[in-house]
Amino acid sequence: MTIHPRDEIVRALKSANNVLLITHIHPDGDALGSQLALGNILRSLGKRVFLYGEEQVGHMYRFLPGSAEVDSSLPPLDGFDCGVALDCGDSNRLGANRDSLLTVHPFVVIDHHLGHQEFGDLRWIAPERASTGEMVYDLAQALGAELSLEAAYCLYAAIVSDTGSFKYSSTTADTFRIAGELLRKGVKPAEVCGKLFDNFTVKRLSLMRLVLDTLQLFAEDRLAIIAAPQDFFVKTGTAQADAETFINYPRSLDTVKIAAFLKESESGLVSVSLRSKGTAYDVAEVAAAFGGGGHRNAAGFKLGETTIAEVREKLLGELLPLVTR
Amino acid sequence: MTIHPRDEIVRALKSANNVLLITHIHPDGDALGSQLALGNILRSLGKRVFLYGEEQVGHMYRFLPGSAEVDSSLPPLDGFDCGVALDCGDSNRLGANRDSLLTVHPFVVIDHHLGHQEFGDLRWIAPERASTGEMVYDLAQALGAELSLEAAYCLYAAIVSDTGSFKYSSTTADTFRIAGELLRKGVKPAEVCGKLFDNFTVKRLSLMRLVLDTLQLFAEDRLAIIAAPQDFFVKTGTAQADAETFINYPRSLDTVKIAAFLKESESGLVSVSLRSKGTAYDVAEVAAAFGGGGHRNAAGFKLGETTIAEVREKLLGELLPLVTR
Repeated sequence: MTIHPRDEIVRALKSANNVLLITHIHPDGDALGSQLALGNILRSLGKRVFLYGEEQVGHMYRFLPGSAEVDSSLPPLDGFDCGVALDCGDSNRLGANRDSLLTVHPFVVIDHHLGHQEFGDLRWIAPERASTGEMVYDLAQALGAELSLEAAYCLYAAIVSDTGSFKYSSTTADTFRIAGELLRKGVKPAEVCGKLFDNFTVKRLSLMRLVLDTLQLFAEDRLAIIAAPQDFFVKTGTAQADAETFINYPRSLDTVKIAAFLKESESGLVSVSLRSKGTAYDVAEVAAAFGGGGHRNAAGFKLGETTIAEVREKLLGELLPLVTR
Repeated sequence: MTIHPRDEIVRALKSANNVLLITHIHPDGDALGSQLALGNILRSLGKRVFLYGEEQVGHMYRFLPGSAEVDSSLPPLDGFDCGVALDCGDSNRLGANRDSLLTVHPFVVIDHHLGHQEFGDLRWIAPERASTGEMVYDLAQALGAELSLEAAYCLYAAIVSDTGSFKYSSTTADTFRIAGELLRKGVKPAEVCGKLFDNFTVKRLSLMRLVLDTLQLFAEDRLAIIAAPQDFFVKTGTAQADAETFINYPRSLDTVKIAAFLKESESGLVSVSLRSKGTAYDVAEVAAAFGGGGHRNAAGFKLGETTIAEVREKLLGELLPLVTR
């Protein structure tokens, strides 16, 4: 009889008293939501918990209950009898203190990333799950914990973050089952989604309008390019991060197979985001040709000492043959 | 013992042979998805079905299986032994042929709109449901019908459309339960969402750019108004339906509590979409003051013989006191 890795983790957590909870650096909603929820759950079971994060929780996620407790100063590690890394696909993503953190034993790893690089003592790796949040929900059930509204809220935010509100292909019937259970705990979907998605600033909308005006279409509208020269950011008082999701607009055009977004940074670097649809166009290969990388449908690269016009020309040289072949 | 209205409708549908299926004019995803799904379900039970629509199905929804069958020529009505209006909150929204359509008996009405104006012979009105699609799912269960992938696909599209992919406050544990069941029938969430959300035409993007340039903010950016005068549609070669989701842009601004979108039709009618966030602002009440209706967070109305500028002034008279109180 094999033991489900989750059950080994349940056993480890049940016998632990002082638990260190960690997630990956630059944490997203699934990372933080899972970390905060598990902290809440373990406390409800009488455990002492320390929520470690290399950085303080960013503006975007401060709405998560408990986020103020994430502490960026590393505590003495010999006091912990269990460590848990959540949503972390690779030990390098534990950050600068990785080696110290890994001295805590047993070191538990709960993750859903495809291509997870194994580390730690006890691992539950489930790439078929849409989010680590779902896994923490199952863990809470297995621990026999009663979910508080706060924990449910964090798990709901985790799931919604990593599925783009149930839009991504990773969404399963299981995802919906758990989402329904979290609503029964009192979570209000519109409230969580409002915090996660309806937080556009007016400045960012101004930037978006400027960027969309740069749209160029090629090859019978199969290739779309948008650009954000440095002066757009200056004019609108925005930062590079504000432009993060704009590539979705050219990508969402019905005729478009490949979309590119060229962004000029303060230091004159031009960074390029590439997106493709379906299996016919591998933009990771294109990015690699420019020294970058990524996945088949989402990749990118950066070039220094150049201009947006120059990068556009070079990029067209690679993309036009690809999209018209 | 009272009979659930759904069960009366089940009885009526079971004994019918020729069913006329209708939805509201300018149908959205929930309207069309529900109509097409119920058509598919009734056919699987051996019924003859006619899918009537005043207009042909728009570009946006032609991906829905069965959408090509929606017929805009009214058939002889004496051949039907049952009519069903889906997602229609008001008999006026049956369109120009309303009076003829209502000669079909029994006339069944299945709707989830708050402030539904009763009509027809048998009514199942459930404003607590997030979509008419969910109600059709329940009806299929009650009819003992086995859902085809096509029907499941249409119902999933209906639910996703009317909940903004599970983002709106109307989303319930029931919504998730049904979404999960539809996935078990083989529906792929990313595929449906891709069709619903990533099918912008280039023309529509041009229209969006023009409309976003009209953004006006009031009351410390708590109130946002955008507008689409008729010449925007002419200039970009787009239709009213292309502008359907633009209200989401001003709505998604972090400071905005109420958003309004004023659209001018060819016939000079100005239609107004209203959105609010949270429970403090009831835009259905505002819409009602102008003879319209809807939900607390999503409502609308239409005014004739007027201009966008005039409607904007009147609307500001209602919205400014509300948003600043």
